[in-house]
Amino acid sequence: MRNIKLTVAYDGTSYHGFQEQRGTSFSTIQETLEKCLGDLAGSRIQVIGAGRTDAGVHALGQVVNFNAARWPIPVQRIPIAMNGRLPQDIVVTEAREVPGEFHARFSARSKIYRYRVWNEPVPSPFHSRYCYFVKPPLDLEAMTMAAGYLVGEHDFKSFQAAGSTTKTTVRILWQAHVVRDGPEVHFVFRGNGFLYNMVRIMVGTLLQVGVGKIEPHRVQQVMQARDRVLAGPTAPPQGLCLEQVEY
Amino acid sequence: MRNIKLTVAYDGTSYHGFQEQRGTSFSTIQETLEKCLGDLAGSRIQVIGAGRTDAGVHALGQVVNFNAARWPIPVQRIPIAMNGRLPQDIVVTEAREVPGEFHARFSARSKIYRYRVWNEPVPSPFHSRYCYFVKPPLDLEAMTMAAGYLVGEHDFKSFQAAGSTTKTTVRILWQAHVVRDGPEVHFVFRGNGFLYNMVRIMVGTLLQVGVGKIEPHRVQQVMQARDRVLAGPTAPPQGLCLEQVEY
Repeated sequence: MRNIKLTVAYDGTSYHGFQEQRGTSFSTIQETLEKCLGDLAGSRIQVIGAGRTDAGVHALGQVVNFNAARWPIPVQRIPIAMNGRLPQDIVVTEAREVPGEFHARFSARSKIYRYRVWNEPVPSPFHSRYCYFVKPPLDLEAMTMAAGYLVGEHDFKSFQAAGSTTKTTVRILWQAHVVRDGPEVHFVFRGNGFLYNMVRIMVGTLLQVGVGKIEPHRVQQVMQARDRVLAGPTAPPQGLCLEQVEY
Repeated sequence: MRNIKLTVAYDGTSYHGFQEQRGTSFSTIQETLEKCLGDLAGSRIQVIGAGRTDAGVHALGQVVNFNAARWPIPVQRIPIAMNGRLPQDIVVTEAREVPGEFHARFSARSKIYRYRVWNEPVPSPFHSRYCYFVKPPLDLEAMTMAAGYLVGEHDFKSFQAAGSTTKTTVRILWQAHVVRDGPEVHFVFRGNGFLYNMVRIMVGTLLQVGVGKIEPHRVQQVMQARDRVLAGPTAPPQGLCLEQVEY
């Protein structure tokens, strides 16, 4: 049994997320990859994804793996073979054979997410798929201070979508950066794991700081309260991108 | 009668060009703008565009103007009023009142077009709407040399779509730059006017130089022949963007 790891980039705009949550007519990234691999292998292939990105969320470095008993293509030829068959909005950037015990999700040690905001007086038609448009000028200093409270090992229950069930809501966040890149403001998070909607709720909360609606230190109180209701709204999906998964 | 000039940016992917050529069910940029302005004015408004971009071609600085007898909105409020009603892929970036004789198309003194190529071994799902993917590494030096032959006042008949009818095919090209920007190669043209498909045929020809299919000096011979058949293929629309119109 061979175990193959793929790195995948995708524009998630037209997909119902990485993995279907409920029965819908939209296709998912996972089923699009599985169909492509199945066509190549001549048998059904199941892929495991590192991060189950939501509908409209993008990936630059999503990682998946799959097992195959018989696999007809040299591993280094997989990206070319798949990219010739996949739709333009999904691209396989790398393929590698990995040890049998490698599991895209459980073997991951950390993930990096980037959230992009378009922060100009006028929106951009070229960025509306990849950025959340926020018109008022954002206070970078205040947001950086607020983001500092998030770094470390904390119970992030306040930043988890209501109704989620997980054994523990404690996670380690090694990095929470806020940087301006011309007309864009980026929020970059690196952590050992992320709760459901955690990045988008953290960004929604930091944006409330950025527009002056709440004080930076309030973010620490929100975190300590372990109550979703106190955090800001969930920022929309199109700004979010799973940049990298580290093993 | 008031004359109002708008600067418009758009992602042309979903439109049948600026101005409909034949009867189709796709909408055009022009009719989308006219519908929006008509709703605001309460009467039918007709817009004149500086450049009639093709289906799939984008604009960062398209210019249009329209006349209105009664116009209900302060000019500086027009972008906000229109952007609240327009689809996300069309954005009005500026509105100004102009003298009665201003005509977006006939008053234009020059236009700048940029053509973007994604020149990496692997395509990018985030750039497939805005770049033409060319896999073989492009020879920038050879293309720069070839582009030099295009600069000046020339008869560009070889670079005009077959079957076009125009009084003269002589145009002045002040600039024809080829620059690399990380994984992208950009072709930037500034001229007093462009024939139908001229930029895309020039790029198609320069790309043949870039991949080593023809020698740079061949481009001069192609131009002198005044024969479309000798030039390269028309590069696809998604790489092209009307950047600026100068008056």
